[in-house]
Amino acid sequence: MINFRIIFKVLGLLLLLEGLFMLFAIPFSLYYHDNDLVPILISSGISIITGGLTWIFFIKTPTSFGRREGYIIVTFSWIIFSFFGSLPFVLSGEIPNFTDAFFETISGFTTTGASILNDIESMSHGLLLWRSMTQWIGGMGIIVLSIAILPILGIGGMQLFIAEVPGPTPDKLHPRIKATATRLWGIYIIFTGLEAIFLLFGGMDLFDAVCHSFTTMATGGFSTKQASIAFYASPYIQYVITFFMFLAGTNFTLSYFALHMKFGKVWKNEEFRFYVGLLLGVTFIVSVVLYFTENLPVEGSFRNAVFQVVSIITTTGYVTADYSRWVPFLWVIILMLMFTGGSAGSTGGSIKMMRILLLLKNSWLELKRMIHPNAILPVRFNHRSVSSQIISNVLAFIIFYLLITIFGVIVISFLGYDLDSSFGAVAATLGNVGPGIGAVGPAENYYHFSGFGKWFLSFLMLMGRLELLTVLVIFSPSFWKK
Amino acid sequence: MINFRIIFKVLGLLLLLEGLFMLFAIPFSLYYHDNDLVPILISSGISIITGGLTWIFFIKTPTSFGRREGYIIVTFSWIIFSFFGSLPFVLSGEIPNFTDAFFETISGFTTTGASILNDIESMSHGLLLWRSMTQWIGGMGIIVLSIAILPILGIGGMQLFIAEVPGPTPDKLHPRIKATATRLWGIYIIFTGLEAIFLLFGGMDLFDAVCHSFTTMATGGFSTKQASIAFYASPYIQYVITFFMFLAGTNFTLSYFALHMKFGKVWKNEEFRFYVGLLLGVTFIVSVVLYFTENLPVEGSFRNAVFQVVSIITTTGYVTADYSRWVPFLWVIILMLMFTGGSAGSTGGSIKMMRILLLLKNSWLELKRMIHPNAILPVRFNHRSVSSQIISNVLAFIIFYLLITIFGVIVISFLGYDLDSSFGAVAATLGNVGPGIGAVGPAENYYHFSGFGKWFLSFLMLMGRLELLTVLVIFSPSFWKK
Repeated sequence: MINFRIIFKVLGLLLLLEGLFMLFAIPFSLYYHDNDLVPILISSGISIITGGLTWIFFIKTPTSFGRREGYIIVTFSWIIFSFFGSLPFVLSGEIPNFTDAFFETISGFTTTGASILNDIESMSHGLLLWRSMTQWIGGMGIIVLSIAILPILGIGGMQLFIAEVPGPTPDKLHPRIKATATRLWGIYIIFTGLEAIFLLFGGMDLFDAVCHSFTTMATGGFSTKQASIAFYASPYIQYVITFFMFLAGTNFTLSYFALHMKFGKVWKNEEFRFYVGLLLGVTFIVSVVLYFTENLPVEGSFRNAVFQVVSIITTTGYVTADYSRWVPFLWVIILMLMFTGGSAGSTGGSIKMMRILLLLKNSWLELKRMIHPNAILPVRFNHRSVSSQIISNVLAFIIFYLLITIFGVIVISFLGYDLDSSFGAVAATLGNVGPGIGAVGPAENYYHFSGFGKWFLSFLMLMGRLELLTVLVIFSPSFWKK
Repeated sequence: MINFRIIFKVLGLLLLLEGLFMLFAIPFSLYYHDNDLVPILISSGISIITGGLTWIFFIKTPTSFGRREGYIIVTFSWIIFSFFGSLPFVLSGEIPNFTDAFFETISGFTTTGASILNDIESMSHGLLLWRSMTQWIGGMGIIVLSIAILPILGIGGMQLFIAEVPGPTPDKLHPRIKATATRLWGIYIIFTGLEAIFLLFGGMDLFDAVCHSFTTMATGGFSTKQASIAFYASPYIQYVITFFMFLAGTNFTLSYFALHMKFGKVWKNEEFRFYVGLLLGVTFIVSVVLYFTENLPVEGSFRNAVFQVVSIITTTGYVTADYSRWVPFLWVIILMLMFTGGSAGSTGGSIKMMRILLLLKNSWLELKRMIHPNAILPVRFNHRSVSSQIISNVLAFIIFYLLITIFGVIVISFLGYDLDSSFGAVAATLGNVGPGIGAVGPAENYYHFSGFGKWFLSFLMLMGRLELLTVLVIFSPSFWKK
């Protein structure tokens, strides 16, 4: 029996918190006099009252839940946040269509950054702050999810983290979440603050600095400018953002070690080395090709390359150059990078470095196994052998990812989009990147999709963000049996 | 120690046989007086002498070999056949460039059907017959390989066949190959003859009927006409070819059962049901969309749909309509079908139905395993449970297939092709289909690729045809150790 009381209790409390978060937009609303105060207050009120009443109604239910309740709470917290989070946009009339508002909001909470806005600069400041904040909150959610919850549910090889996470032993869910979340949220908040300060130094104003810090650390990619980071010609600003995107795509537990001066532990981490290696390798190739094809100076080629590579690998989705106008070779590489994602335990989406690395290691061993069919050759990761159970979890995850991509491309092409656009839209939403290629390239947005298309892509964003299986499992009949 | 003597002996004998096969082109050469008699005789002579001498030189080496020798023999038999098989094209001057001739020939022996010819009808008849025959010989090779050799090497789940194959128990390689090969080659030859007779009834002349039967049963797709099967307006001919493509994409052991009136055994086979189901389902969708978008009558829509779907699913690659001009949704589906392939144990290439089915079954169970993490839920196939060993072989195969596809797309896009064309070229060569989309669509060919591009695509055809791992394993350093 699924215990719905507990689900309502937890979701109620979370919704209450969302309502409180909305209030952070108030100072900016007051300062800029944009007439968005009332809709924000109403939305906040609705969320606080609905959430608060639900929570209080079920407050006596003991908060210990099983696997199934866990899946439902995770999936529905993102859905409910997006539903209530879209209220300010609808009530203010700035995004009057509910489908559009929901798309923009779930694109925020899933840290995707796919937008339907044709004129971002015309939006009021309070709402832009809330829009950036949805990503920042989404990033906080992902930190808990990927470091404290998914490993316990055993999704897609995330078990590999349990041993890695600093804090008490992982035998009990509750104290673990608290201790880990507190530590890593601390780092998340520190990095956000640092980035804002660095951006202020570069001449960005406070409002834009806060918004961009929010969406960088979440690997979200919502910008307050229609032209995204291309708006800022300053190389300093572009490099600062590149650096913080890189941090946001790094396992937060490694940042924790680094802040405690345990650099050896960071560098010994195989996923981190793979992440840095891939990033440098691809940046080098892209820089060279850009230099010879785009007539840019050396520094400009490197800056565009490193910014765009880091932005896509980490699934942030900021843009300093319209990569869809580069030679096909380069945007094919960009498209491929949408499937790698940042490190596991970061706020980045997509398949993630750890899984790609385990996949490659296992494939390599598979060749060895063909020559020595009776030898036992386990995959080794960070000097420990990985159980075949985890390897098959990882492979299953990647295969689900590809099956959903294929299904998605068929659906989007059915709506009349060509292969580039369909592939781009699916890769960029499922991977929580934001901009894709073709009709959803960096200079375009998602406004032109039909209502059905927007709901479908919203669903892809949700699935991608919640590591697919968390959502898919709810659709499996055996989930509901007994 | 790898025993090279045995490798030379076997390859020598096979090359001798190739030389003898070339002689089948002589009657057609004589009948049509095309001046291709001398180059064919010289090529045949070179092959017979080179092969024969090598064979005789090593004739005393006992013919029992291990795993490693097996991999080398399989890979190099295709390479050597393509090398010597391209001699008639080069010596006659009809394809003067060796790279082009090699591409065309390996495209034949791998039953791919990708062509560099801009004017097929201008070729002499003897050479066209040889061109068709390369595919037919390739098909014979694949029957032995996939039913008698790969299962023993344990490649990509092909072990599942061992129990299925009629004949003596699979404890010894030699008697098994003989018995199985004789039975299934018999069926292959009977079907080829039947198709030729049916095509003659439809008004095709003997030469074209023989050539098309050769390339249908091999799921090869070389046509004697530049317009492929679109040359024949007759619905009868198109339906006959559709039917025989369907047979060629069916496991030949099932055809063996069917010819022995054991229809129950055929219908109980899960792969066959999946193959038929997918084929009918996709044909229905394509027919409906064609009817509404292409202004064709009902029968014409159905005929184009079923022909093209069967042609691509079986990896034959014949064309009656330029599907790349259909709405994107339809050619996206066609592109996806290039990754399914026919049944295992057929002459079709690509991933193959059995693996796709096992992949889907395993993914479904993976969801169940998430809810009941301690339950043991084996994949069942044809009412037997499949070992986790075989499942991981299958998953590894599919992942290698995708990794090579990704690598291929990056390489081809580097040569300056856009995503559609790169993806199309890789899917169509690795999957042994022939025509792709974009710059290699059904109305185009592969002539425009650079020399490097042609060699690279030749390599993809070879890997695809030999189930990837057979070729890849030779590149693994541990293959050559000790």
